[in-house]
Amino acid sequence: MKILVGYKGVNVGKDLLKIAVEHAMAFKGEVLIVTSMIGGGKAEQVKVKDAEENLEKGKKYFEEKGVPCKTHLLVRGFEAGEDIVNFANEKGVDEIIIGVKSRSKVGKLLFGSTAQAVILQAECPVVTVK
Amino acid sequence: MKILVGYKGVNVGKDLLKIAVEHAMAFKGEVLIVTSMIGGGKAEQVKVKDAEENLEKGKKYFEEKGVPCKTHLLVRGFEAGEDIVNFANEKGVDEIIIGVKSRSKVGKLLFGSTAQAVILQAECPVVTVK
Repeated sequence: MKILVGYKGVNVGKDLLKIAVEHAMAFKGEVLIVTSMIGGGKAEQVKVKDAEENLEKGKKYFEEKGVPCKTHLLVRGFEAGEDIVNFANEKGVDEIIIGVKSRSKVGKLLFGSTAQAVILQAECPVVTVK
Repeated sequence: MKILVGYKGVNVGKDLLKIAVEHAMAFKGEVLIVTSMIGGGKAEQVKVKDAEENLEKGKKYFEEKGVPCKTHLLVRGFEAGEDIVNFANEKGVDEIIIGVKSRSKVGKLLFGSTAQAVILQAECPVVTVK
């Protein structure tokens, strides 16, 4: 069982990581933590470094729980939703876990466009966590 | 572990039931299959009977795999999404599994409004299956 976690940083996704650990343990699976970035431009270099550091923190979280984990930073010029689904297909992933928290300026809970794209396009079940 | 399956009939949700069995087995959980209907009106009486029969078929599917299962037909005057989320909270459900397949008249895959409501309002993780 391969579980892909769409990941934006350890503080954003505490519940996400908790659920991913529970699923990995129940299914005796391994976790792929994936951050997708469009890439290009000099401003992106700082973001890439941040993303790499965040992925390492995420990896540590899983390893401390005894869950096998690999990190992947995708910088391939794709929108995050499409990128995650394509990567999941390439790797033969069995389940994708994503966060769905997104708020409008007036505080209303909205559906993030990345989450929508992943749910509609994925070829495997998608677990959404708030 | 309590797993709620939002259910519209055994032929609509074959993959849904398959995934629900896998989750129930991995988490050693029990399944609640739930069909939500607005209710009211004489035309609904036939639909209620159909829904009850479909729920029994679903229950049989789970029982054949050795998964404990209860059925619930909700006719409480609520929209399906709200109804399912409220019921999940009442029962202390740990995970909701729903189908997300919905097509427009021109065949484009759309996000069903029930699925959207459940994903945004649920207090537990939601698994979407196509």
